[in-house]
Amino acid sequence: MRYELYYWPSIQGRGEFVRLALEEAGADYVDVARDAANGGTAALMRWLEDKAVERPPFAPPFLKAGRLLIAQTANILMFLGARHGLAPANEAGRLWTNQLQLTVADLVDETHDTHHPIASSLYYEDQKSEARRYTAEFVKTRIPKYMGYFERVLQRNPRGARFLVGGRLSYADLSLFQVVAGLDYAFPNTMARLARGHARVRKLHDAIAERPRIRAYLASPRRLAFNEQGIFRHYPELDA
Amino acid sequence: MRYELYYWPSIQGRGEFVRLALEEAGADYVDVARDAANGGTAALMRWLEDKAVERPPFAPPFLKAGRLLIAQTANILMFLGARHGLAPANEAGRLWTNQLQLTVADLVDETHDTHHPIASSLYYEDQKSEARRYTAEFVKTRIPKYMGYFERVLQRNPRGARFLVGGRLSYADLSLFQVVAGLDYAFPNTMARLARGHARVRKLHDAIAERPRIRAYLASPRRLAFNEQGIFRHYPELDA
Repeated sequence: MRYELYYWPSIQGRGEFVRLALEEAGADYVDVARDAANGGTAALMRWLEDKAVERPPFAPPFLKAGRLLIAQTANILMFLGARHGLAPANEAGRLWTNQLQLTVADLVDETHDTHHPIASSLYYEDQKSEARRYTAEFVKTRIPKYMGYFERVLQRNPRGARFLVGGRLSYADLSLFQVVAGLDYAFPNTMARLARGHARVRKLHDAIAERPRIRAYLASPRRLAFNEQGIFRHYPELDA
Repeated sequence: MRYELYYWPSIQGRGEFVRLALEEAGADYVDVARDAANGGTAALMRWLEDKAVERPPFAPPFLKAGRLLIAQTANILMFLGARHGLAPANEAGRLWTNQLQLTVADLVDETHDTHHPIASSLYYEDQKSEARRYTAEFVKTRIPKYMGYFERVLQRNPRGARFLVGGRLSYADLSLFQVVAGLDYAFPNTMARLARGHARVRKLHDAIAERPRIRAYLASPRRLAFNEQGIFRHYPELDA
């Protein structure tokens, strides 16, 4: 079965967490909105607007898997984790992986607000002073708090600090890789200054980038570059 | 087995979504931080700070269920849903319920930001002008968008508009009840103005309030009142 991933075609955004899981799994998938032959963005909009969709998504990303239409990033990852061995099969392990993923999602939401603290519908330029105020606090307390948390999780893993959950890769590791890569892009000064405090997180990030399928993906045209339309944006004035 | 719920003792907050599920399930639980005999807030802090906790929560709420320590509201609800028949047992139904819950969670996050658009660590009074700007957009576009979405979900449910998922109560219904109750408290003018556009959501809210266990809970001292320390705060200047 070929998965259909639906996400905005020009940004990594929240879709990237799903792309990384699909790539690491070696899954057969099409990134529909980026593929005119498969309907492009119009096909994505159809799922959002078609009144006949019984279980409509609120927003992208969403994944078509046979008859299932699954939205919400963490929910899609939970599904893929179970299908492709990217999470433990037992209840405690599944819940813990989901818990970590939801914590990554909170950090992603807070990162989005660094450039859009007032409204997603307004341009960054129209909320620049609020963005500066929000981000001052974000880089000072929030990034260290989240990085410190994931560092502790790695440190306390009885199976070692190589992975967040037990002794095997899970989708939460891929997501932590992505959020670190994104913060490195958006806030290089901040992340360099903080690096010593989360050495294990950094090591995990580097190891994920070297996994054969992830390395091949990152070097391929399927990996979009970070840019100033996505969640992780580099505005030098915000990176004190 | 008696569950231990850990959440801040003076607000409904995110803990309330868990309390509602526990109450509807008729589960045996103790709300630890509100109960001095069980250790109060110090017991909550211990789980956050104790270096021996192998799988630490990032923040409350968290639930102790035997040997499991589960954090992140949607994750706790997924666990309770499976244990207490508050979600379908099949994969498609479980994923759909979780998807709806994560969409409620997004609305809850956005509601929090109406009074704290800049930083949770600052007082509302110190971010009042930004709050006014954020909330103008929130009441104009975001509340209608979310309410319209849940209205559509109810409308398209082939088993009827009584519940979000199939023909039986799920924890997502309880959470939708709570978010509507909270928005009614925080933004009474806005919600009254919009009521006609989400009649099914309103009806679900009213029906949940009349379920015997929920009604008994809401009338009990276990239900904290909404207040201006929680997520749903009534600041008349924000409710245009």
